[in-house]
Amino acid sequence: AAEKSDAGVGVPISNILIIIAMQTEALPLVTKFRLSEDTTESPFPKGVPWIRYHGIYKNLEINLVWPGKDAVFGVDSVGTISASLVTYASIQALKPDLIINAGTAGGFKAKGACIGDVYFVSDVSFHDRRIPIPVFDLYGIGTRQTFSTPNLVKELNLKFGKLSTGDSLDMSPQDEASILANGATIKDMEGAAVAYVADLFSVPVIFVKAVTDIVDGEKPTAEEFLQNLVAVTAALDQAVSQVIDFINGKCLSDL
Amino acid sequence: AAEKSDAGVGVPISNILIIIAMQTEALPLVTKFRLSEDTTESPFPKGVPWIRYHGIYKNLEINLVWPGKDAVFGVDSVGTISASLVTYASIQALKPDLIINAGTAGGFKAKGACIGDVYFVSDVSFHDRRIPIPVFDLYGIGTRQTFSTPNLVKELNLKFGKLSTGDSLDMSPQDEASILANGATIKDMEGAAVAYVADLFSVPVIFVKAVTDIVDGEKPTAEEFLQNLVAVTAALDQAVSQVIDFINGKCLSDL
Repeated sequence: AAEKSDAGVGVPISNILIIIAMQTEALPLVTKFRLSEDTTESPFPKGVPWIRYHGIYKNLEINLVWPGKDAVFGVDSVGTISASLVTYASIQALKPDLIINAGTAGGFKAKGACIGDVYFVSDVSFHDRRIPIPVFDLYGIGTRQTFSTPNLVKELNLKFGKLSTGDSLDMSPQDEASILANGATIKDMEGAAVAYVADLFSVPVIFVKAVTDIVDGEKPTAEEFLQNLVAVTAALDQAVSQVIDFINGKCLSDL
Repeated sequence: AAEKSDAGVGVPISNILIIIAMQTEALPLVTKFRLSEDTTESPFPKGVPWIRYHGIYKNLEINLVWPGKDAVFGVDSVGTISASLVTYASIQALKPDLIINAGTAGGFKAKGACIGDVYFVSDVSFHDRRIPIPVFDLYGIGTRQTFSTPNLVKELNLKFGKLSTGDSLDMSPQDEASILANGATIKDMEGAAVAYVADLFSVPVIFVKAVTDIVDGEKPTAEEFLQNLVAVTAALDQAVSQVIDFINGKCLSDL
């Protein structure tokens, strides 16, 4: 089917989609891979703020999609709704072989996370979709395993943990209980939404998430997040670059 | 632009999109308006569980879209992610003049809501997207006014209030504080997501929401919701039918 990845056994990956929620996280990669912003024609319909950067790097066609600035408020369109919409529209328009969702995250020191750590993700869940009706509860949590990349994990020597996603930057006691139940080491605001949509179309997704703030620490999340965003983004973008270099020339089954 | 409604001043509304999250809520309207389910061809890509019912009723082309059953868990695909995706895909494929988001909701007795009440909605907000950074906080809440329909509200004599949306059926203390701050009389799991996407494309949306459970009452929400779902759906669907009959032959500016 047209929606399925063409990169099967023995066929090298040729088309990568990188989804990044914040401009600050995206721009260093745009520079590094010499990607161009769409000017005259966009793969997306008129009205949406989504920005696609694209280019060729080694043997890979790279599309980097950032959901753009909200037209009303002028801030990055963070969160699960924009993430799911851009994932959907990008899969339809760009037919990626593999999706990389990169971004910053909060980490739990009780689980070993430190500021600046970069994580690969083994599975994703939601922590703010509580529906206490049998089966609906599991749908709300929506745990999904990510695409398995044992060679990539070994080669890059990054940390490896579970990710929990919700639409708040802070963490309520109910969120915390759900995150613990999900067994997560890191929390973000997009990952599980990207995974949900990619899963509809059987497109493999991997996650690269860098820790900007310690969720179970002393400092308020928002303050710590803003303090560390730029420095941690450098670590994030270095890891994404290493991932891309590793992927180049390989098949999905080699990852 | 192709995405904009063609129903301007003096042009009758001809193409209505009804978005309903649950099959139980949708099927009586499918019967009432004699809508047909897509069989061989769908306006949506392969992989999604979304179901479109369509037909002609009086002078209106009606498309009713239900996000369908989750492929993994088999339950209705409720919540903001599916609602935003089906709204996006339906606007692209069906170019509606007007969207009606109909469904059940929780109501606050302190604000005058009773089981079985049907509400029109004046504005929508989110209550579970807390981002305590200036301007991001307002983006998270995302308050939007709905399309103004003073004649429709007057004619149908329904209640009128603010709606707050979140991905949980229950309500945490943080949710409750946000809902109160939003001034909401009713809470649901889709409305503000539908409004967000419709607003990207300047498609007018109205909301018809029927109260299945009292959020600030004694009974657990899930139990009360399930007890009242079928009976309240009858009131909901009657109200939607009255809305459709009122809209028939009118222009957007007549509503």
